[in-house]
Amino acid sequence: METGKTVPDLKLKLLIFSSFLLNVFFVSYIYRFIGNQIDSGWSSPAAVEAEAAAAISCSGHGRAYLDSVIFDGNPTCECNTCYAGKDCSLLLSNCAADANSGDPLFLEPYWRRNAAGSAVLVAGWHRMSYEANGDNYISLELERHLRLLHYAVGNAITRDHFIVFGAGSTQLVNAAVHALSPDDVNFNESSTALVVATAPFYRLYKQQTKFFDSRENLWDGDTSNLDNLNASSGANFIEFVTSPNNPDGKLKQSVIGGSSVIYDHAYYWPHYTAIANPADEDIMLFTVSKISGHAGSRFGWALVKDRKVYKKMVQYLLLNTFGVSRDTQLRILKLLKVILAEVGREGDIFKFSYETLNKRWAKLSNVISSSSRFSLQKLSPLYCTYFHKIRDPSPAYAWVKCERLEETDCEAVLREAGIISRAGEAFEAESRYTRLSLIKTKDDFDQLLSKIESLVSNERVSSM
Amino acid sequence: METGKTVPDLKLKLLIFSSFLLNVFFVSYIYRFIGNQIDSGWSSPAAVEAEAAAAISCSGHGRAYLDSVIFDGNPTCECNTCYAGKDCSLLLSNCAADANSGDPLFLEPYWRRNAAGSAVLVAGWHRMSYEANGDNYISLELERHLRLLHYAVGNAITRDHFIVFGAGSTQLVNAAVHALSPDDVNFNESSTALVVATAPFYRLYKQQTKFFDSRENLWDGDTSNLDNLNASSGANFIEFVTSPNNPDGKLKQSVIGGSSVIYDHAYYWPHYTAIANPADEDIMLFTVSKISGHAGSRFGWALVKDRKVYKKMVQYLLLNTFGVSRDTQLRILKLLKVILAEVGREGDIFKFSYETLNKRWAKLSNVISSSSRFSLQKLSPLYCTYFHKIRDPSPAYAWVKCERLEETDCEAVLREAGIISRAGEAFEAESRYTRLSLIKTKDDFDQLLSKIESLVSNERVSSM
Repeated sequence: METGKTVPDLKLKLLIFSSFLLNVFFVSYIYRFIGNQIDSGWSSPAAVEAEAAAAISCSGHGRAYLDSVIFDGNPTCECNTCYAGKDCSLLLSNCAADANSGDPLFLEPYWRRNAAGSAVLVAGWHRMSYEANGDNYISLELERHLRLLHYAVGNAITRDHFIVFGAGSTQLVNAAVHALSPDDVNFNESSTALVVATAPFYRLYKQQTKFFDSRENLWDGDTSNLDNLNASSGANFIEFVTSPNNPDGKLKQSVIGGSSVIYDHAYYWPHYTAIANPADEDIMLFTVSKISGHAGSRFGWALVKDRKVYKKMVQYLLLNTFGVSRDTQLRILKLLKVILAEVGREGDIFKFSYETLNKRWAKLSNVISSSSRFSLQKLSPLYCTYFHKIRDPSPAYAWVKCERLEETDCEAVLREAGIISRAGEAFEAESRYTRLSLIKTKDDFDQLLSKIESLVSNERVSSM
Repeated sequence: METGKTVPDLKLKLLIFSSFLLNVFFVSYIYRFIGNQIDSGWSSPAAVEAEAAAAISCSGHGRAYLDSVIFDGNPTCECNTCYAGKDCSLLLSNCAADANSGDPLFLEPYWRRNAAGSAVLVAGWHRMSYEANGDNYISLELERHLRLLHYAVGNAITRDHFIVFGAGSTQLVNAAVHALSPDDVNFNESSTALVVATAPFYRLYKQQTKFFDSRENLWDGDTSNLDNLNASSGANFIEFVTSPNNPDGKLKQSVIGGSSVIYDHAYYWPHYTAIANPADEDIMLFTVSKISGHAGSRFGWALVKDRKVYKKMVQYLLLNTFGVSRDTQLRILKLLKVILAEVGREGDIFKFSYETLNKRWAKLSNVISSSSRFSLQKLSPLYCTYFHKIRDPSPAYAWVKCERLEETDCEAVLREAGIISRAGEAFEAESRYTRLSLIKTKDDFDQLLSKIESLVSNERVSSM
């Protein structure tokens, strides 16, 4: 018998060779792929942390944020109205539907869908300086994208306008009033600017003007109370015009005219209204809150034609807050890029928003139409230059009227039925009116609709 | 000769088995590790984008941000003073050293070193709502960490104080003045609050009060001009006390006393001064700008004892800007966590800052000490409860005095020598004084020192 070394079988040779090749392949794959992962290092903890927070289940009725209160080492869920419990799965009974605030959470699903494009990783050394790369603490890329946005949507002319950033249009409201007021009244009240608006109007204009109580201006109330609206009468009026209006969603014009009109176009986007033509007024205010839904970011801008007014507003921003957070500016830029990339496409935010709010309005209108106790504002279909078609209404708010003679306090009527609304008096309108927000979460709208349906069906029952 | 199947060698068996085991190992490794990488998806583009921007080389004399102007598809470098070119490698000749602004970029290297811990990935749906999880739009975790910070450093008592957030202490300055002013003077100017400070003081207090020109208060100037400082004289004074003071770094006390004193403690941190004891005044202002160096984020806070004053300040924040950006609040929380984690350790930000600024002060003092033309403010070593030792000065600013009789305009003297400073008049001080910022980038300080050295050595030459 022969002993010692023998020749291996051919199949075995192939097996060894294949196994060896596989190992070579794995090593090179790992080297290339993981090599990159290991070399990139510093962004990973932040990315991991963010995905972990996002993955926390809140039953679809809430969400956990990176900076939510920590329990057991993890951020806790923050629940939608009427939901509670560790994972927001508990629906509270006897809980009022809250339709008070114009909190634009209806847009949250849009951003979850666009998670990858809309996330931004802020490095520890991002824009530490007071200075940004543009004048007056603004990011040049952000300014450029805002102009692109107006161009893409066609809702405002920007080429003749300077841009002023603000912490929400909230900050720009008083900055504009200040800029249109005289430089110094020197205790001569006759030159004091008189600030007015036409009811129903957004109460911030009045609240701010009275609260800051500048010597250079004075809240003068509703335009319908003015005897003489002729701007040449000598009185220096500053008029607020909100178009579409808050609370009733109607397109508005100036009543007084002249050059001291501040147009608040917060809602002049395809979400809420047909775009008739691009706005081109002297002062136009916009806010990201009502476009992307990022109310918490505090970012708005003003388009301003007059250089002197612009300079005064910029000075206001400097002395009030040294401009707007550069962190916020970065985030808004990222969001705008997503919006612009999707314009006219399947993922168009304006399409998403219009469809969502139109459905909500249609449902609510449908229920209210069978009621004689309540009515809604009349809004007509209009041609929209953005969608290139006639479109049905999709307002941000329902402006409800209590029709029964004896029901003069509509907010109380709804409150008794478990619906929190914002009373007409808050808009200098009759208390027969009250405002319902239609732009909150799906949970909020479902709760609202359900309570309205009960109310209206009780109407039919009690009339039987 | 025998043919057909044969028995493989033992070594070969081991080789096959090992190779096979390796295959199994690699497959499971790739499945676990890379599987995670592939499954996690949405945070990756943001992380990759951020690391790419951070990796752009700006020659150590600048940096590219995610929102820098794009050229050739990439963000471009933003260069330090006197540097230019695509990668900031070009040092400009005849370029003035800019020591004007208190821009705290000396802290940038600290955050680059802490890249992993200080990065934050902001999801597209992060805090879209107006509401935060605390009252008045504040993040509860951030408030908790601010109290922890004061406790860790020992520079302020917080347990008896409410906290108000502001867009920088800038916003809180006017919020505090407003809160301390009467609710409504009703055109009776005798109750108008008189706002004062003691020269040299930070000019924002005066600029803001005059600019916003509220009927409830009036800028009344330097305390040294007041005949009667007795608070019971009937006049309603609101006094600003900055301690350590800007521009001279000295610890200050109220001159007037009473309950309407606003203490601006922007610099009361171990970077700039010994911590003698925890401050415990009725109103204390702080800003993240001078702690972490994130001046661009616009974040500050006020510690307020009196409930009514707190409520008024909160109302100011609501009507001015609906609170502070929730994006910014998240970022600041992340930065505070890094700071707190490193307190008392090798990576302590206070240690880093003190050592940096102390060295700069020492170098500058050394040069100026050989000058008879210029002098600096006198600052003594003091015992610091944070470092548990006597520490040399490390002020944010040099308060330079021109000693020559004929040189009454010190800002002009330095400007002629290629140094931009902030004139004494900006602080209501004599123009014989001017302020140099010592807290900017290393490039800024090197340029400043170099120009000062030339100036002083010319002094020696011309006196020979």
